[in-house]
Amino acid sequence: MTDDTPRTGGSQGYLRIATEEAWATQDLFDAWDRKMAEPGADPGFVGLAGFYTASQAERPQNIKRRLLDLGEERIADMDATGIDRQLLLLTAPGVQVLDTAEGVALARSTNDVLADAIRRHPDRFSGLAAIAPQDPAAAAEELRRGVTELGLSGAVVNSHTQGRYLSDQEYWPIFEAAEALDVPIYIHPTGLPKDMIRPFQEAGLDGAIYGFGVETGLHLLRIITAGVFDRFPKLRIVVGHAGEALPFWLFRLDHMHAATVRAQRYESMKPIKRTISEYMRENVYITTSGMAWEPAIRFCQDVLGADRVLYAMDYPYQYEVDEVRTHDNLGVDAATKKALYQTNAERVFGLGSR
Amino acid sequence: MTDDTPRTGGSQGYLRIATEEAWATQDLFDAWDRKMAEPGADPGFVGLAGFYTASQAERPQNIKRRLLDLGEERIADMDATGIDRQLLLLTAPGVQVLDTAEGVALARSTNDVLADAIRRHPDRFSGLAAIAPQDPAAAAEELRRGVTELGLSGAVVNSHTQGRYLSDQEYWPIFEAAEALDVPIYIHPTGLPKDMIRPFQEAGLDGAIYGFGVETGLHLLRIITAGVFDRFPKLRIVVGHAGEALPFWLFRLDHMHAATVRAQRYESMKPIKRTISEYMRENVYITTSGMAWEPAIRFCQDVLGADRVLYAMDYPYQYEVDEVRTHDNLGVDAATKKALYQTNAERVFGLGSR
Repeated sequence: MTDDTPRTGGSQGYLRIATEEAWATQDLFDAWDRKMAEPGADPGFVGLAGFYTASQAERPQNIKRRLLDLGEERIADMDATGIDRQLLLLTAPGVQVLDTAEGVALARSTNDVLADAIRRHPDRFSGLAAIAPQDPAAAAEELRRGVTELGLSGAVVNSHTQGRYLSDQEYWPIFEAAEALDVPIYIHPTGLPKDMIRPFQEAGLDGAIYGFGVETGLHLLRIITAGVFDRFPKLRIVVGHAGEALPFWLFRLDHMHAATVRAQRYESMKPIKRTISEYMRENVYITTSGMAWEPAIRFCQDVLGADRVLYAMDYPYQYEVDEVRTHDNLGVDAATKKALYQTNAERVFGLGSR
Repeated sequence: MTDDTPRTGGSQGYLRIATEEAWATQDLFDAWDRKMAEPGADPGFVGLAGFYTASQAERPQNIKRRLLDLGEERIADMDATGIDRQLLLLTAPGVQVLDTAEGVALARSTNDVLADAIRRHPDRFSGLAAIAPQDPAAAAEELRRGVTELGLSGAVVNSHTQGRYLSDQEYWPIFEAAEALDVPIYIHPTGLPKDMIRPFQEAGLDGAIYGFGVETGLHLLRIITAGVFDRFPKLRIVVGHAGEALPFWLFRLDHMHAATVRAQRYESMKPIKRTISEYMRENVYITTSGMAWEPAIRFCQDVLGADRVLYAMDYPYQYEVDEVRTHDNLGVDAATKKALYQTNAERVFGLGSR
């Protein structure tokens, strides 16, 4: 057992770097509110964003206030839970639900705000660029600007963009830029597409409880099976929530992918160079956001390799000191714990090198 | 390591009972063909059933022939892979895609065919009743007839029925009958609902590779969170494919369910008596169909209990002698192996007692 209050500063043998930590701006909330007021607004977007911008319940109110803070309250919360560094991701659905021009402009201005916070607290914050895949060329350019001019560490994509997936070739300029810049893309959940959400939403299961995971897992599978990693072999993709359960499915994914390709059952599922599990172990990294549970974490370390699993808290959605203790107390050796908390994140996101 | 050829008869210390083994009749295929020819046929149904009834590729042709056999070829295949007993389930989508009257009638005639095969081979076959939830009262009555008059061991429901889920209270007479008869309901995958399938199907990911699992997991979660097990506390539900990944999600399911109920976020998600993981450990059993992979099987045994995990092959879809060897060679003690292969199935399905 560790001391009851987790401390920052590495006295336990590692720094705690939390790699999927959410933030937002009032400009973004205002843009969401305007979009939600339009007729025929997307139910997955409204279900997700409307809850946090409009609900008066205590949990969403606390979350909204914390999302907006990139200063004293956030750092005090990090100190209270022993987090040395947060990697900041613009919260879902980000700018991806907006009209193209507004999304492109808001990604840019938001990244400037983020870079400013990092300049003020370089020892506590790192961050990923927001991008608007609605305009793939602009998204690739904003990723380049974010990394080379603002010092950001990659990009976050809040899963599908108005029902479209990065597996479609029109979006591949984003992957091309990420590979060339040697930075990862983090695929984060969002509200489900309107032509998928009904059986989930009518039962209250479309969100973080279940729907988010399966839709983000679907996104990653689409990227893998479309051959993205054959075209961009050095590309790194990161997903949270212990790999959105794909590590659990590895055997079946490999078996059924081979059978489906062999039977030529789908025009869209062509042969690719490796098995799905090989891409999962060579191009994909996963974080423990929302999955502070020893059996699942160790399962992932066992089947993917300890060098592929990174710590995340998912602040402020999952702000729980008990979950830090769960990670501190994992029954793994010191090197594995340091990899989980610190060195994997430094390597995957290039922290310290830019 | 076991002998290279698995033998039947229990000489290895256990009988091998395979609990999710598929069969079909030509009448069912003909009914599907008629339904698929109607304008506006459901894309999930056509994608699943059309592949097996119409494809000339070798794999679907072999599967179709084996589905139709309840005699010599099937028993020879069982002998070749060391399977002592198959629990037979009418293959997906069963009668659930048909018009109500036809579905009710075909469930009945199909169960008569199944009961006849079991009478001819009582030492090799057991089976679950097909039912048509389109008419909940008739489905409950056919379950009763199947168990009390035909000697069947429960019922199979191939997930959603034309987009509707057993979590809706109109279907609860089926659960009431199952609890009163002391038999389980097996929820088996099927083609995805038409208002969910698009993001999966356009990438070839709607079937056994991924979509089946997430949709069947959704069905079980809907049943749990609707309070079915509070109303029917002795009801047993079985799902395949190592629990459709719900065991991997247990921590997050419990955490987010509690948070969602607390925030009163959905009218449809009311408080229930226990946590999701408690129902998973008390009312749910899982089989290893399509998941012949030691890490996933042992993970499930660890987090749910060894008494809740049952062997299944998923013949003829997954007819692989190597997968029997994987189960024979699991690094678990003899009692756990016997529970996995034999005694859990005997207890859950009442085999030997009727």
